Amino acid sequence: MIILGVDPGTLFTGYAVISGVNEKLEMLKCDVIKIPAKNKLPIRLKQIYDSLVDIIEEFKPDEFAIETAFYGKNVQSTLKLGHARGVSILAAVNKQIPTTEYSPKEVKKSVSGLGSASKEQVRFMVCKTFKIKELKGSNDISDAIAVALCHHHKLLSGGSLKISTAKWEEFVDKNPKRVRVQ
Amino acid sequence: MIILGVDPGTLFTGYAVISGVNEKLEMLKCDVIKIPAKNKLPIRLKQIYDSLVDIIEEFKPDEFAIETAFYGKNVQSTLKLGHARGVSILAAVNKQIPTTEYSPKEVKKSVSGLGSASKEQVRFMVCKTFKIKELKGSNDISDAIAVALCHHHKLLSGGSLKISTAKWEEFVDKNPKRVRVQ
Repeated sequence: MIILGVDPGTLFTGYAVISGVNEKLEMLKCDVIKIPAKNKLPIRLKQIYDSLVDIIEEFKPDEFAIETAFYGKNVQSTLKLGHARGVSILAAVNKQIPTTEYSPKEVKKSVSGLGSASKEQVRFMVCKTFKIKELKGSNDISDAIAVALCHHHKLLSGGSLKISTAKWEEFVDKNPKRVRVQ
Repeated sequence: MIILGVDPGTLFTGYAVISGVNEKLEMLKCDVIKIPAKNKLPIRLKQIYDSLVDIIEEFKPDEFAIETAFYGKNVQSTLKLGHARGVSILAAVNKQIPTTEYSPKEVKKSVSGLGSASKEQVRFMVCKTFKIKELKGSNDISDAIAVALCHHHKLLSGGSLKISTAKWEEFVDKNPKRVRVQ
């Protein structure tokens, strides 16, 4: 079971591709898609979408996990984040990968045992779990690893790590409760 | 010059395809993409994207115009709108169509002469302009017509209705000021 976790943003989109077979976990790749700030929004959206499609084609994940958005006070930032999330989710759907969304609290609790864990605690725990001595880059990467790891835990606790993805529409018909993005 | 105007939403996305040669205007098609509310967000985003790609392939617009988002007080609605806008803009960019954004005030002023015009006034003016006796459907359609018409007016006043679209990247290099979506 290969899971792609994504933490989207219009400038930095963190992603992590993990492999999980029961308790055995492996980090296949984690990094951040950096978009130059000088690029206009339409170009940025295409760059995020194309980069994620490339990652999906390279690693062929079975599952896609993303955090629910943080509803900040800045409406304009929230709108921009919405654009980035929209094209990220679309990349998964267009490649027929089932999509699951988790709240920040669920992710934190799943990876650290504490729903109120700090970003540093989350970063520490994902490094420990994947035996990463030094994780370079921003918290966008550790957040992406965390949501992928959270999804692995959830699938594992559900007892089903083997899911026939087939066509997205078929998947939705068969698994209406699995599609949690609202 | 064919212009596609879009007024996106996660449930209703209005669109209008107009043809404009100098002062001569023609409505090629206007309608609304209705997405069943029971569908989950990933599916809705794919439906919006696929529908717009179909419209683009059918009418081959030279230009794409969209309103800047209304920053409402409801942050969750704004985020959802962001998703719909993101995939709408992506549909245009992926089909290499130059994208321009206008504020609601610019659109209203352009079609009715009044920046503070009501939705009903905008609806009346676009119907009058295109000699539509009775426009069925919601204001999502009249708003989409309005933004397409606004773009036609702007291009006309700029004196250039012939633009080589070529590749999007080339277009951006050549026309950095034309890419106004932020």
